[in-house]
Amino acid sequence: MNQPCFTLHLPDWLEKRIRQEKPSFLKLEDRMNFVIELSRLNVRHGMGGPFAAAVFRSDDGSILAPGVNMVLAAHCSVLHAEIVAIMAAQAATATHDLSSPELPSCELVTSTEPCAMCLGAVTWSGIRRLVCGARGEDAEEMGFDEGEKPPEWPEALERRRITVVRDICRDPAAAVLREYRAAGGLIYNPHRGFSRQP
Amino acid sequence: MNQPCFTLHLPDWLEKRIRQEKPSFLKLEDRMNFVIELSRLNVRHGMGGPFAAAVFRSDDGSILAPGVNMVLAAHCSVLHAEIVAIMAAQAATATHDLSSPELPSCELVTSTEPCAMCLGAVTWSGIRRLVCGARGEDAEEMGFDEGEKPPEWPEALERRRITVVRDICRDPAAAVLREYRAAGGLIYNPHRGFSRQP
Repeated sequence: MNQPCFTLHLPDWLEKRIRQEKPSFLKLEDRMNFVIELSRLNVRHGMGGPFAAAVFRSDDGSILAPGVNMVLAAHCSVLHAEIVAIMAAQAATATHDLSSPELPSCELVTSTEPCAMCLGAVTWSGIRRLVCGARGEDAEEMGFDEGEKPPEWPEALERRRITVVRDICRDPAAAVLREYRAAGGLIYNPHRGFSRQP
Repeated sequence: MNQPCFTLHLPDWLEKRIRQEKPSFLKLEDRMNFVIELSRLNVRHGMGGPFAAAVFRSDDGSILAPGVNMVLAAHCSVLHAEIVAIMAAQAATATHDLSSPELPSCELVTSTEPCAMCLGAVTWSGIRRLVCGARGEDAEEMGFDEGEKPPEWPEALERRRITVVRDICRDPAAAVLREYRAAGGLIYNPHRGFSRQP
């Protein structure tokens, strides 16, 4: 086989964090608090934006794969937290479809509502439930660009039988975005006519 | 460093095809015809959907990176042709932003208009021009699902200073989609209420 053209390594601190504890959370709020902790750690470790996500089994809350925003660290604009979690979960289960009948029902828990790209990625992933912390507008207030999302995206996902749960621990999730901005964190997406700053 | 959780290998036949010729095309139609050829080869080699794309330098038409749909082959629903091309181009140039001043202006040439996920990915990539072959509706006629795209997506990209060029070699590009469907190719996206077939 030829050389890989792209390799995704989860950060060492994240691997270690997952190995230590083998996270498993019955309560939805506990799943979200774990993801919010990852978003804060991601900033502390300088990996990229203040965003994290994870794919969990919906039934017992055990983790299939975590994800953090790795755009800057991995030189790849595609690597939003949700995309990393989906790629890692599909690699771990060797399927492009997390709704395969052999798998337990899977959900994506994300510290901030997905951008336009990640909403599309959720649609194709086989994820059956999307659980969101901070709102898209919380991110936009901090200068992040959400892209061209359909205004009624939760209804659009529901029509595709993907359940959407919003505002789980919204305040602590949004607090990480505010801390990032207050600390002068880079808002890096080329957006709004290519001005780089919010 | 820990083990990679995901590795992207371009298919051997694609690497070989690129090495052989080092494609460089002054005319837009020639860039598109090359991409259409890749979409047809992708079907012949059984990699996934009948879709291909490539990132070119806009000025001299030399290729930065090719991409083909690898969803089935790589067990990853994110790996649409446009995403593969963007990831490979950013890995080759070691930047998350293809609009960096050190780089020549880059364009993404895609055999079929991007789905909702890939439109989002184009927005964040730093690509300055999007060149499309077949229309989204050509793909939808064959049973592919484009996701929730804003109806006026070309105007939305233009507002972000990404030029959109449509209908370049639309007929030969759409012919590959028809051939794929006629040959009984799998339409794999979990869509329209999770029915797997168009």
